[in-house]
Amino acid sequence: MEKKIINLGIFGFGVVGQGLYEVLNRTKGINARIKKICIKDPNKTRPIDQSYFTTDPNDILNDPTIDVVVELINDTQAAFEIVSTALKNGKAVVSASKRMIAENLPALYQLQVENKVPFLYEASSCASIPIIRNLEEYYDNDLLNAVEGICNGSTNYILTKIFEENLSFDVALQQAQDKGFAETDPTLDIEGYDPKFKVVILLLHAFGTFVKPEQVYNFGISHLNDFDIQFAKQRNCTIKLIGHIRRSNGNVHAFVLPHLVKEHNLLFDVYNEYNGILLESAFTDKQFFVGKGAGGTATGSAVLSDISALLYNYRYEYKKIKQQNQPTFTNDVQLKVYVRYKSPEHVDLASFYNITEKYESPECRYVVGTINLQKLVDSAWLQNKDVNLLVLE
Amino acid sequence: MEKKIINLGIFGFGVVGQGLYEVLNRTKGINARIKKICIKDPNKTRPIDQSYFTTDPNDILNDPTIDVVVELINDTQAAFEIVSTALKNGKAVVSASKRMIAENLPALYQLQVENKVPFLYEASSCASIPIIRNLEEYYDNDLLNAVEGICNGSTNYILTKIFEENLSFDVALQQAQDKGFAETDPTLDIEGYDPKFKVVILLLHAFGTFVKPEQVYNFGISHLNDFDIQFAKQRNCTIKLIGHIRRSNGNVHAFVLPHLVKEHNLLFDVYNEYNGILLESAFTDKQFFVGKGAGGTATGSAVLSDISALLYNYRYEYKKIKQQNQPTFTNDVQLKVYVRYKSPEHVDLASFYNITEKYESPECRYVVGTINLQKLVDSAWLQNKDVNLLVLE
Repeated sequence: MEKKIINLGIFGFGVVGQGLYEVLNRTKGINARIKKICIKDPNKTRPIDQSYFTTDPNDILNDPTIDVVVELINDTQAAFEIVSTALKNGKAVVSASKRMIAENLPALYQLQVENKVPFLYEASSCASIPIIRNLEEYYDNDLLNAVEGICNGSTNYILTKIFEENLSFDVALQQAQDKGFAETDPTLDIEGYDPKFKVVILLLHAFGTFVKPEQVYNFGISHLNDFDIQFAKQRNCTIKLIGHIRRSNGNVHAFVLPHLVKEHNLLFDVYNEYNGILLESAFTDKQFFVGKGAGGTATGSAVLSDISALLYNYRYEYKKIKQQNQPTFTNDVQLKVYVRYKSPEHVDLASFYNITEKYESPECRYVVGTINLQKLVDSAWLQNKDVNLLVLE
Repeated sequence: MEKKIINLGIFGFGVVGQGLYEVLNRTKGINARIKKICIKDPNKTRPIDQSYFTTDPNDILNDPTIDVVVELINDTQAAFEIVSTALKNGKAVVSASKRMIAENLPALYQLQVENKVPFLYEASSCASIPIIRNLEEYYDNDLLNAVEGICNGSTNYILTKIFEENLSFDVALQQAQDKGFAETDPTLDIEGYDPKFKVVILLLHAFGTFVKPEQVYNFGISHLNDFDIQFAKQRNCTIKLIGHIRRSNGNVHAFVLPHLVKEHNLLFDVYNEYNGILLESAFTDKQFFVGKGAGGTATGSAVLSDISALLYNYRYEYKKIKQQNQPTFTNDVQLKVYVRYKSPEHVDLASFYNITEKYESPECRYVVGTINLQKLVDSAWLQNKDVNLLVLE
């Protein structure tokens, strides 16, 4: 596609779609223009000319002059159908739909192989951080040890407000929603589903291993209370919701859990809606990337970087899938955790491998100990709103 | 070059060359092999088989089966000749020689245009941080406001030891040299020349403006004394040597100067031989990259990422050079600085725009005030070992 102008067909004109429009409009160096935007509601007032819009997906999917389909809608099932059809029609696709991608990675991988067209989705994982492309280009899977970080802007915003401005959870959540950082359904964020989708995507690009979202354990920040916050502050720590992927002995484990983070940790200073990703590898030791993980123009500019990469026919090579030594996904790993609860029948202390600290007061109890990740996956007791968990470093 | 094996001809087998050899050997996913290594001294014992080596550059430059020349030598003039000849002979070139590249950017740019071959040099700027490729792909020049950061591993190592372990400057320098972080000539590092070469390269990829190294002012850390260190510590600050590039009103200014850095600044926590680069742009606000800025395998793996990019015919587009609105380089900018000196005749206080603080004791004097960068460029008084300068935030 070199030297020619790329015609874009866009699905969705919400926060990210409008962000992309703005970014594209102000970026002079890119040979791409919007030809058509497919939206659901034809009667909604739009900030740009009506001639851009259609409600018929086929106006984009069957238009031979449209080179690239940009999929930016919220409906997971509809998004998958649009992306599949576009790929089958031989169009390059750029998408920001982490959930749709995470849930359909094997099928999408096959589709882009069979139809020999690029499918790029940098914006789906940590928005403005070019993490997928770095994993694709910089690491052989036997050299990479771990990928971990803060990959949800809205929970990080909430946690920042709680720790830096002493706001309550509810007030901080409301602020995040007012600023447009929280997703349509805030439980996806605060219960750790959104970062889990990113973990699933990053795991494939980091280690070549396909996992389903339901295989990856997630526990968010909705159980957090003042006692936990004081526990962290007394130890000069903060709390961050961290997606974690680590390879060891031919296996790889992954989870999304709230962590107690010490001051020397690079993730400590990732504030507000920013995301931060830490890579550990044999040759470069640690690499750290920080950037805005939410917001229209930050995500829009990640989408634009994919469009820009299509101009030189870039596509993900998925080299690690093709190699022989992909690690096997496991939940069999020991974690050092703090578990806070109200009364002894709320938790199953017998499921701990060991317990090194135990605290009791009339208001609250907690233990610090080691527990196998599989036990957390199997535990019903963690569903109790009066129980919280934090991973310790 | 897709799907085939790339044959490499390497010049130089020092720290980076051996690092590349190790990285390449342990990376299974890359279709590249070393065919020949050109070295200066045939009698030196080498850790790998003698059949790899030659002392005749033409064994590489004139070998039609060699696709990519990797230039990793210290001699700037010889490096330029090798790279020029290789490009003229239609070979792709990967180089890590920041000084050679910074001093010859216009000529090298022309050579890769005329000969239609890629010339990549990610390893030349901040080793393991993929900063050039990010500037190439993620930012239009009118959207990027600033690029700044720690881009010299050895001075950062020295400053970390001074601030974290209370070592003296000399002991810290010795340790950096023992660890192989310091260049052959340590003055290139500690007087800020090495980071300046990187600033020149980054300035072109960030804003499309060619500058010569001698246009960019550099003042390193060799004048640093205990008083300066105490001054920083009393203010809960650290000192970092920072390369800074900022666009404003159609102009761009750049310099390498030691800075007083506050705790909230992301650069504060970049320790030891790590580098950190902060980008400021209209859409993504701030992006921050941290990675090892020195050492054989860290630099080797950056070289490898360039080799890997050649497999899909990647080349720098230099889009910003082709645009119309490159900013003009200027030194006309006001800086807030601390200047410490021994006696009044050592400094030219009249060259300050204003002075807001003045301190005098029998041992030491300092002022805090605003001064134009051009005055620093013109000042002879800063050459005096008894005078030091720090930029304040």
